[in-house]
Amino acid sequence: MGEMRRIETALPELQALLGERLVTSEADRALHGQNETYYPVTPPDAVAYPENTEEVSAILRLCNRHAVPVTAYGAASSLEGQHLAIQGGISLDMSRMGAVLAVNAEDLNAVVQPGITRKRLNEELRATGLFFPVDPGADASIGGMAATRASGTTAVRYGTMRENILALEAVMADGTVIRTGSRARKSSTGYDLTHLLVGSEGTLGIITELTLRLQGIPEAISAATCRFPSVEDAVNCVILTIQSGLPMARIELLDEMMVRGFNRYSQADLPEEPHLFLEFHGSPAAVAEQRDAFGEIATEFGADGWKTADTTEERNALWEMRHKAHYASAAFGKGGHIWPTDVCVPISHLAEAVLQAQRDAKRLGLTATIVGHVGDGNFHAGLSVDPGDADEMARAEEFTQALAETALRLGGTVSGEHGIGLGKQKYMTAEHGAALAYMRAIKAGFDPNNILNPGKLLPPGNREISDGS
Amino acid sequence: MGEMRRIETALPELQALLGERLVTSEADRALHGQNETYYPVTPPDAVAYPENTEEVSAILRLCNRHAVPVTAYGAASSLEGQHLAIQGGISLDMSRMGAVLAVNAEDLNAVVQPGITRKRLNEELRATGLFFPVDPGADASIGGMAATRASGTTAVRYGTMRENILALEAVMADGTVIRTGSRARKSSTGYDLTHLLVGSEGTLGIITELTLRLQGIPEAISAATCRFPSVEDAVNCVILTIQSGLPMARIELLDEMMVRGFNRYSQADLPEEPHLFLEFHGSPAAVAEQRDAFGEIATEFGADGWKTADTTEERNALWEMRHKAHYASAAFGKGGHIWPTDVCVPISHLAEAVLQAQRDAKRLGLTATIVGHVGDGNFHAGLSVDPGDADEMARAEEFTQALAETALRLGGTVSGEHGIGLGKQKYMTAEHGAALAYMRAIKAGFDPNNILNPGKLLPPGNREISDGS
Repeated sequence: MGEMRRIETALPELQALLGERLVTSEADRALHGQNETYYPVTPPDAVAYPENTEEVSAILRLCNRHAVPVTAYGAASSLEGQHLAIQGGISLDMSRMGAVLAVNAEDLNAVVQPGITRKRLNEELRATGLFFPVDPGADASIGGMAATRASGTTAVRYGTMRENILALEAVMADGTVIRTGSRARKSSTGYDLTHLLVGSEGTLGIITELTLRLQGIPEAISAATCRFPSVEDAVNCVILTIQSGLPMARIELLDEMMVRGFNRYSQADLPEEPHLFLEFHGSPAAVAEQRDAFGEIATEFGADGWKTADTTEERNALWEMRHKAHYASAAFGKGGHIWPTDVCVPISHLAEAVLQAQRDAKRLGLTATIVGHVGDGNFHAGLSVDPGDADEMARAEEFTQALAETALRLGGTVSGEHGIGLGKQKYMTAEHGAALAYMRAIKAGFDPNNILNPGKLLPPGNREISDGS
Repeated sequence: MGEMRRIETALPELQALLGERLVTSEADRALHGQNETYYPVTPPDAVAYPENTEEVSAILRLCNRHAVPVTAYGAASSLEGQHLAIQGGISLDMSRMGAVLAVNAEDLNAVVQPGITRKRLNEELRATGLFFPVDPGADASIGGMAATRASGTTAVRYGTMRENILALEAVMADGTVIRTGSRARKSSTGYDLTHLLVGSEGTLGIITELTLRLQGIPEAISAATCRFPSVEDAVNCVILTIQSGLPMARIELLDEMMVRGFNRYSQADLPEEPHLFLEFHGSPAAVAEQRDAFGEIATEFGADGWKTADTTEERNALWEMRHKAHYASAAFGKGGHIWPTDVCVPISHLAEAVLQAQRDAKRLGLTATIVGHVGDGNFHAGLSVDPGDADEMARAEEFTQALAETALRLGGTVSGEHGIGLGKQKYMTAEHGAALAYMRAIKAGFDPNNILNPGKLLPPGNREISDGS
C-alpha cells in the first residue's frame, strides 16, 4: 500500500495528546524492540502509554490520519515477533490498562483490561473461588493472549482463548470503538467479530476490554507425573486417553531431552526418559475415578515411576517447571536463544509427527526439546540456537519447514498457539490457499491505510475477489 | 447496491449446466418459498440442485456474473426466514449433497456435506459409539445449522455449532472454493474464517463441507423431569446449578403454558406447572453424583413430582416431545402459526427476563409458551398468531420489541440461536452499534455484487470506515 508514513508530523500531535506518556527515549524504544526468541531488536519510533479507551481511540485516529503504524505491546512474551514494530511507528504499551473492571461471579465471567497478565488476574480472582484457565508458559497479558489466540496446558479441558472470550471492546484503525459479543453465553446475531479479532494479532483492531469466561476452582485437584519406555508409548497413551473421553485437565508430553532440560534448569531429579505430566480436576470421587481410569490406560503403555503432586505447593512447583520449558530449552545452546516451533495435528497422527520431528532434528544436528499440549495434538520442538551462527540458523529454518510440511500433510496446522507474526507467514499460502484472499479483504476493509501491526500475519500479496466483471 | 439483476440471461446458462436439476416449476418454487413461521411465501425464480462443490462453484460464478441472488436451502426449518429468496434468484437446494464423507473416529470428528440432517447424521454414526450433540428442535440440515449458528438442548454441556465445527469448505460469491480451519483441535494461523462463516446465514459463502467434532456416547445417561411451584423457583434452581459447576447435559425450562401445550399436542400427562426437563451424562458413578447434587439444589427450590426416564425409549419420547415445542405452541392459536422469539441473557438475569416476558405477554393479550435452554440463559416465548389478524400481529411485534429491549438492557442478545434473517434486522443497530459497519465491510469485500442471500442479516445502511482522508 502506497500511503506515505508521516511519523514526523504525528509525533508532536501525539506528544500534545499524551504528554510524558509518549516516550521517545532510546532506552524505552530498545526495550520495546526486544523479544523472547531470535528476531533482531527492532525499536519503534516512540512508545505510547494510553490509560483508557478514549486515548487509544485518539491515538489511532491521529495515526490513521498520518498513516503511522501502531503495534500493540502487552507483556512482550509473544514468540513470533508479534509485538515488534517492524515498520516503525508507535509501540502501544497497554500496561497502564491492566484493571479488572468487574467480576460477575454469578455469571462466571470477568471484564478486564488487556494489560493485565494471566497470573495477576488469577491473583485478583482468588477470593471468588473462580479462575481463568488459559495458561501459556509466559505470564502473558490477557490482551496479547487474545490477539494471538493463545492456549496452554489446560486447553484440553477448558479450551483456548477462542473458547474463553465472551465479548470484546476494540478500537479500530480509524479510532472507532466497537463492542463485539455480549455477556450472554451464546448469540446468533451477525458476523462473529469476537472470533475474528481473537487471533488477529493486532492487525484488525486494538483490544481494549475483554469479557472472559471463568471456571470454578475444582473441589479436588490432583497432579502426577509418570515416565514411559518411549515417546511413542507416551503419545499412544495420550491418544487412547483422549479417545476414551477422559476429561483430563492437563496432559503434557516431555521427551527425554526436555526432561534433561528441566533437570538442569529447574534442578529437577527426573529420570531422563519421556514423561507425561498430568492433572485431574473434579469432585474427589470424579478425580479418583479419572486417575484410576488413566492409570489403567497408562500401564498398558508401560508407564512407571509415578509421582503425585497433591498439595498446592507441589503442584505449583510442577507447573512452574513446565512453564519454564522455554528457558530450559534455551539453556542448552551456546547462544542462549530459542527457536520455537508449534504445530498441531489430529491426535491420531501425533506419534507420527513427534517421531518425525525427533528424526529431523537428529538429521540436521540440532538440539531439540519436545514438549507439548498433546491432548490437543499440539507440540513444540524447541531448538536452542545462536543467531550469530548462520549455519545453525539455516538448519533451524530447514527443520521448521520440514515440521510445517509434516503438520500440513497430516491434516494439521503450522501453529497451534503461538500464531503467525513474522516467522510463519511463509506457510500461510500452503495452509490457507485461496482463503488468504478473504483474509486480505478483511484487512483491507478494516484498515485501509495498513497502520495496524503492518507486516504481520498476512504474507505480501494481492486480494483477488472477482466482482464478475 | 445498484447492480442489475439479470435472471433471464442466467437461467438458460444454469439450465445448460444443471439440466433437469434446474427446476422452475411453480410447485417446486412455491415449496422453496415456504417457512415454519409467519413470513409470507416468497418463491425463488428457480431451484438448483447441485450435486458437488464444483457445481456450486459453477453456479455461483455464473450467478455472480449476472448479479443473480443465490439463497441456500437446507431443511427449511430456519425460524427467521433465512432460506427465503426474498429478492428472487436461485434457491440452492443442498439436499443432494448430504453424504457423510468420512468418520475419523480416532480423532472424534466427521466430515459431512451440508445437506445431511442432524438425525440422519446420528443414525449414520450410531455404530461408531460417537454422536453429534447439537440438536435444534427441528431435524435441520447441518449446513443450515452452521449458517445460523444453531444450538439446542445440549449446548449447555457440549456447546453450539460455534464450538463444534473444526473446519469448513465453502464456495464464495465469485465461485472460489476455500477451506477454513483444519482437522487439528486448535490453530492460531490467521483470521478465523470458520467462525466468520458460522452464523453468516449464507451471506458470505455457501458451506459445502463441514468437519464436525463428535462426542463419545456417554457410558450412562439419565433423564428426569420435575415441577416447581413457580417459574422463578425453577429458574433460580437453574442458576444455582450452573453456578455450582454441575456439568448438566440438558436443563430445559417449560412454563405452565408450554406444559399445557405438551399435554394437548403430545398427549403428555404432566401437571400444568413450571417444569425442568433434565439429562445427566457420564460414568454411572458420575451420573449418580450429578443427579444427587442436582436433587439437593432442586429440593431447596421446592421441586417435586420427580419422574425419571432411564430407558432409551423413555428418553427419546421425552426429548421428542420437547423438540416439538414449536408445533405444540402453534396449536394454541386459531391461525396455527407461530411467532418465535429467542433471547439469551446472562444467567444471573434469567429469572428477571422470563418474568418480564410473561408479564408482557399478559399485558398484550397474547398466548405465549415459554421454553428455554436455560442453562445457557436462552429462552423462547412462542406466540401463537394468525398472520391474517393484523392487530394480533402488531401486538406480537410489540412483544418482540419489548423482549429485545429487555435482553439488551440485561447485557444479553436478541438471538441465542435462531439468528437474524428477516425478523431481527431491526435490532441489529441496538445490539451492535458501530460494529455493524465492520460487518458491512466484510460483506462488501466478500460479495461485491451482493448475490449471497441478499436482504438478510444486515439491515440496510452504509459502511463508514474512514481512511483518514
